[in-house]
Amino acid sequence: MAQTKPRGVFVAALTPMQRDLSPDTARFARHCRWLLDQGADGLAVLGTTGEANSFSVAERLSLLDALGEAGIPGETLLPGTGTCAIPDTVALTRKALEVGVAGVVMLPPFYYKNVSDDGLYAAYSEVIQRVGDGRLRIYFYHFPQMSNVPISHELIERLLKAYPDTIAGIKDSSGNLDNMLAMCARFPGFGVFAGSEQFLLPVLRAGGAGCISATANVTIAACGEVYRNWQSPEADRMQVDLTAQRLAIQAKPLIPALKRIMARATGDESWLNVRPPVAPLSAAEAQSLFEALDGTGFRLKLAA
Amino acid sequence: MAQTKPRGVFVAALTPMQRDLSPDTARFARHCRWLLDQGADGLAVLGTTGEANSFSVAERLSLLDALGEAGIPGETLLPGTGTCAIPDTVALTRKALEVGVAGVVMLPPFYYKNVSDDGLYAAYSEVIQRVGDGRLRIYFYHFPQMSNVPISHELIERLLKAYPDTIAGIKDSSGNLDNMLAMCARFPGFGVFAGSEQFLLPVLRAGGAGCISATANVTIAACGEVYRNWQSPEADRMQVDLTAQRLAIQAKPLIPALKRIMARATGDESWLNVRPPVAPLSAAEAQSLFEALDGTGFRLKLAA
Repeated sequence: MAQTKPRGVFVAALTPMQRDLSPDTARFARHCRWLLDQGADGLAVLGTTGEANSFSVAERLSLLDALGEAGIPGETLLPGTGTCAIPDTVALTRKALEVGVAGVVMLPPFYYKNVSDDGLYAAYSEVIQRVGDGRLRIYFYHFPQMSNVPISHELIERLLKAYPDTIAGIKDSSGNLDNMLAMCARFPGFGVFAGSEQFLLPVLRAGGAGCISATANVTIAACGEVYRNWQSPEADRMQVDLTAQRLAIQAKPLIPALKRIMARATGDESWLNVRPPVAPLSAAEAQSLFEALDGTGFRLKLAA
Repeated sequence: MAQTKPRGVFVAALTPMQRDLSPDTARFARHCRWLLDQGADGLAVLGTTGEANSFSVAERLSLLDALGEAGIPGETLLPGTGTCAIPDTVALTRKALEVGVAGVVMLPPFYYKNVSDDGLYAAYSEVIQRVGDGRLRIYFYHFPQMSNVPISHELIERLLKAYPDTIAGIKDSSGNLDNMLAMCARFPGFGVFAGSEQFLLPVLRAGGAGCISATANVTIAACGEVYRNWQSPEADRMQVDLTAQRLAIQAKPLIPALKRIMARATGDESWLNVRPPVAPLSAAEAQSLFEALDGTGFRLKLAA
């Protein structure tokens, strides 16, 4: 486990698939390597964007192993390991530690709704105790629009108090900048990652850790520019351009839009494979995506 | 697979757990046997009430095996097999067929929200084709308050057209009686189960199949009375009493309330074990539950 806290731009990496929808581990490792080469500070693999919840635990374990075998440095990784079932979350988190990750991004169990903070506290606590490993660093995953199970500041406070070395931060995908800034102020040293590069600059300036973003799969170079220049007034202009690209992409369903962009940039049609219930973009959606995106000055071209 | 279509009162069976939160397969089989002895027409095991999504696939497979080994007739079973991940749904559905179930209750993949009917169609279609077994009978699970992924009538129509022998019906837990009645009218022969015994009588009278209910774990005897008398005007009075019991219980978090009632009725404290994020009732909640419930004339007493 890395001694320095993760900071900067982490990409919520896409998961390439074969035509039969099985994970394409070789292309996955190659994409992760490319993202690091483009300047990503790290990779939040196996998250929402990675379609992780559409994979079995065995498939997810094999993807983590593939990264280890491909020599992707563990300290660059913040894999998603939170599932609905404590034993599954424990198995994935143990594997992540085996790969030497910097931390894990952990969804709350997300099937049951309107659960109490007591129930969520018990769920996280049970996982931490079952994993029983002092190297564990947990980043909460606050994504109420998807999980419908928000992470309250009171829950963070209770778990920080009980497990100060383990509770490391949060990925806030709510899109609510006020919530991100409030956590930066309330919990010093707690690593707040915005869930979109749209909020990279204000979160960094408020003392946050950076962003973990889906669209960074294709905007990583521009994200890196904002991050490297965040203390300079020039970063504001860069952020405006970056935000325009983000907004053009997120106007469409995010996962198939990003895979479409990767297919165009590489000429590799296998990037179009998505696992249901995620559905591919229609031809008309793809055309309007590219019209909007190209209008922002976005460029991406790389080898297949 | 049973030749006659499931009909009547199916209990969404609770899953007893050991103190270490592992499934208590022996108590589970005993509870299922007791429910059948009390007049349940069948058992919708491993559903929301059974905390199935809090169990790993391996744990769920072991619970299905335990029922087979305990001699619970397969034709009484409608287990839940829908998960977020197609390979998991396929594995659970195959095991259900091995146990000889009457059908399966299948949640849509429920992590991703705002997915299109195309995406949901592809998900169900992929599962049906991978299972590849002519005995498969699928009951959709429409529970928008929990899954946040509703099952539209258009989706039902498309899947019924593509897989007329496989698509058998739906469990509608929306609480929206109009939706249940509309499906009874629009899809003749499609087995519509209300997700609560509160709607048992109107759904039966509209040509529906019956109900699949959590609270039937403790109201099964009264549910059976309504079902046996549904064509008689006396059933209306019975339904009023049954509904009062249902409403008294569902005023509390359902799973811990039902487990509390089972613990009181059996004197067996191990019924109180729940898996996080589900949390036990507080003492005050339990007291107000019992006050409200006892006021309805509810009685339940059985051996531990």
